[in-house]
Amino acid sequence: MNAEFVNPFLQALQNVLSMMAQMELKPGKPQLKQDEMARGDVSGIIGMVGPQVKGSFSISFEEKLACEIMSKMVGEEPDTLDDEVCDMVGEITNMVTGGAKKTLGEKGYEFQMATPIVVSGKDHTISHRSDGKKLIMPFSHQAGQAYIEICFEEISSS
Amino acid sequence: MNAEFVNPFLQALQNVLSMMAQMELKPGKPQLKQDEMARGDVSGIIGMVGPQVKGSFSISFEEKLACEIMSKMVGEEPDTLDDEVCDMVGEITNMVTGGAKKTLGEKGYEFQMATPIVVSGKDHTISHRSDGKKLIMPFSHQAGQAYIEICFEEISSS
Repeated sequence: MNAEFVNPFLQALQNVLSMMAQMELKPGKPQLKQDEMARGDVSGIIGMVGPQVKGSFSISFEEKLACEIMSKMVGEEPDTLDDEVCDMVGEITNMVTGGAKKTLGEKGYEFQMATPIVVSGKDHTISHRSDGKKLIMPFSHQAGQAYIEICFEEISSS
Repeated sequence: MNAEFVNPFLQALQNVLSMMAQMELKPGKPQLKQDEMARGDVSGIIGMVGPQVKGSFSISFEEKLACEIMSKMVGEEPDTLDDEVCDMVGEITNMVTGGAKKTLGEKGYEFQMATPIVVSGKDHTISHRSDGKKLIMPFSHQAGQAYIEICFEEISSS
């Protein structure tokens, strides 16, 4: 998995947050090895399947950051990770993956998106189970951390 | 979503657990509405995409039940939800979805599986974000509860 594949997700995340919440997250150092695990209080997860590849994408937020994004979007800060925040995280997951899908489709990498799933629970970890390469990338904001993780593997022709 | 679509997942789960761990989980009452949420300490999640439908499948275990399955499979009970237990949950997710895929393919419902993701974290909730129907089904065992949740929606032809 190279930068050509990963950058569309990073750009889509920054576009979505800048557009929806006028917020900028500072990207950290991407990790190719699985020493670090995506970790957060609320995560959006989506599966992807194309003719040659299959994979998964996740985005995890610390509670305070998720609430801050919600606050910036609707003008009122939620106290906890309520159903509306989970909806928003599902929507962000869809929009980021949809943005990356469009860019990657133009480059000849086609895939279809499954439906998103939102996980809520204090300090959970996300682990993508695949033989393919995994890229994890932290983002920071004064309200808290976010992580995205992208993973793709080639479909065997069996 | 009707029984024809759901039963292959339930049967595949029971086959997998009986084959891998000689265990039988007692199925509870399936719920079509989203009043109840899948909840557990470790969950396996996978996306599915077909020509007409897309969706997601999850299976969530309470910690003690996941450890009990691990113990039955390898003869040694883990103390916590370690990496091996997460591996096993990812594998169960793959096997159950793969079993259901085979049965459903024979009935003319085709889909491809994305790669599984495992979530670990005390008492997290799983929420499938889709316009389609969601079915949640509890399973019980003396060691603890498990939940499977299946969700499919039709792909719009846009």
